[in-house]
Amino acid sequence: MKEKYSIGVDLGGTKVKIGIVNEQGRIVQKVSVDTFAEKGPDKVIAQIKEGINLLLKTNKKKIHGIGIGSPGTVSAKKGTVEDPPNLPGWKKVHLGKIIQKEFALPTFVENDANAAAIGELIYGAGKAHQSFIMITLGTGVGGGIIYKGKLFKGEFGGAGEIGHITIDYNGPKCKCGSYGCLETYLGNKYVIKNVSEKLKKNKSSLLHKLISNNPKGLNPKIIHDASLLGDEFSIKIIEELGEYLGYGLASVVNLLDIRTIIIGGGVAGFGRPLFASVKKTLKSRVLIPMRKNIKVIRAELKNNAGIKGASSLVLYE
Amino acid sequence: MKEKYSIGVDLGGTKVKIGIVNEQGRIVQKVSVDTFAEKGPDKVIAQIKEGINLLLKTNKKKIHGIGIGSPGTVSAKKGTVEDPPNLPGWKKVHLGKIIQKEFALPTFVENDANAAAIGELIYGAGKAHQSFIMITLGTGVGGGIIYKGKLFKGEFGGAGEIGHITIDYNGPKCKCGSYGCLETYLGNKYVIKNVSEKLKKNKSSLLHKLISNNPKGLNPKIIHDASLLGDEFSIKIIEELGEYLGYGLASVVNLLDIRTIIIGGGVAGFGRPLFASVKKTLKSRVLIPMRKNIKVIRAELKNNAGIKGASSLVLYE
Repeated sequence: MKEKYSIGVDLGGTKVKIGIVNEQGRIVQKVSVDTFAEKGPDKVIAQIKEGINLLLKTNKKKIHGIGIGSPGTVSAKKGTVEDPPNLPGWKKVHLGKIIQKEFALPTFVENDANAAAIGELIYGAGKAHQSFIMITLGTGVGGGIIYKGKLFKGEFGGAGEIGHITIDYNGPKCKCGSYGCLETYLGNKYVIKNVSEKLKKNKSSLLHKLISNNPKGLNPKIIHDASLLGDEFSIKIIEELGEYLGYGLASVVNLLDIRTIIIGGGVAGFGRPLFASVKKTLKSRVLIPMRKNIKVIRAELKNNAGIKGASSLVLYE
Repeated sequence: MKEKYSIGVDLGGTKVKIGIVNEQGRIVQKVSVDTFAEKGPDKVIAQIKEGINLLLKTNKKKIHGIGIGSPGTVSAKKGTVEDPPNLPGWKKVHLGKIIQKEFALPTFVENDANAAAIGELIYGAGKAHQSFIMITLGTGVGGGIIYKGKLFKGEFGGAGEIGHITIDYNGPKCKCGSYGCLETYLGNKYVIKNVSEKLKKNKSSLLHKLISNNPKGLNPKIIHDASLLGDEFSIKIIEELGEYLGYGLASVVNLLDIRTIIIGGGVAGFGRPLFASVKKTLKSRVLIPMRKNIKVIRAELKNNAGIKGASSLVLYE
């Protein structure tokens, strides 16, 4: 029997990554270009078309459909993308229709965090868990709710914004307009900014030594490395991040009674100490009858999770 | 055509209320007794049986089933009630089976807050809204999620604990073990305690005058009355409560993208100023694309909402 292939488009403000993916979620070919975000939607859409064309020309596999994971508010039904942050000038674009028309292939658009959740469901952790909360730690903090094998979309399709759960109504101002959102504690930029500030008072830490020649070299990986080498400062930073995430996730678990949490994305690179801290916090904060069966696990899709997640939309629909 | 009737049992730590309810949610007959909670589950179950027997003897309507709304962790599937607060000694009781066996009538058990949500769905606001967040403000703060005409139960049946969403991870200690739960701001006891303390510094307020002869007379209604008479102190109290609720509900809306909120229970007696404050806060805190279509409305089941909600389980199942 012939294998099924689909195309996944990971549309981001920095890169557009496109790949051909098999049914097991393995990428057989891919292209990646810098997004010409500032040139507006027409140019970016042309980049997507070029990328897909390139893959189709150089690869004769039969493609069953195209999945697109996009930032912003997505209507999966209509295939529209609205106001994606970091993609100026988009307002509302009928991306699904445009791509479907160009290639005469079934095309599915989803919010990138939802696509990541569906990717885990189809190719990854979903084999063992039919209900889970997916949280993607990157520049922003995204999320998706999988309930009984289906994406929970809510009344208007926008559900899953775990990054905008508040853990302190008086907390730091979030770019969404609210205060104390999870994203203001765990979004990449916020983490780097907070750690940079704390580092000034912790100049004896190993982390400070590791990055001393290049303050811009601060990233989750180097903090993780320092923690592995026993740097108390870095260990504490990671524990704190896990606590913040645990506070927010406790609200989610109490609300939804879904007890499996899957964490993906860059900050998840903090590894085991982060997961241990999340689990400990969560277990001490959720309602007692819900403390059983709590699982905090790492996303299975790692490299190019965006392409894989997007391609999974074709198999899911 | 004959009308359908069902029995609703509102099991509480203070009162057991039982009624015969018609298909429109009107109570045709009811009994109410003080719960002998401290005498343990056998005695309380006997009280429930006596109440139902009394209704069945004095009323010859054909009953289609019995619905029970219970505090604690309820498995609707198994009909079990676990660790209900204010009902000592229950641990885990197969309440559904016991009542079903006694009366040979289909019997359904739900958590009381979920029963309230189903009650609204069947008899009340659900006629116009197939997806909503129900929040019940009483001694505790309960909740239920109705999604596309169905109760959202979660993986293990415990979903909807809106009272245990945290709005400040560093906030007041909650009896659940966590901190800064909505219940610590909006549960009846917490409200009364907080207002009592603030009153000490606001002796010139009208509210202070209204209750001066009886400090135990402080309740939501009297605060509401004072606010209607223009008491600035009381108005501010109600606004603040609405803000707290709005902070928590913003997290819920961002997570679920369900934009209709139904508020019931005693504290909802604060009336329009509370609802206005909740709506204003919610609208300023949820993600911008979700600010459209936000509705904050009052529960339609008022008096004996517990009996009605419980009876609705029979029609829902």
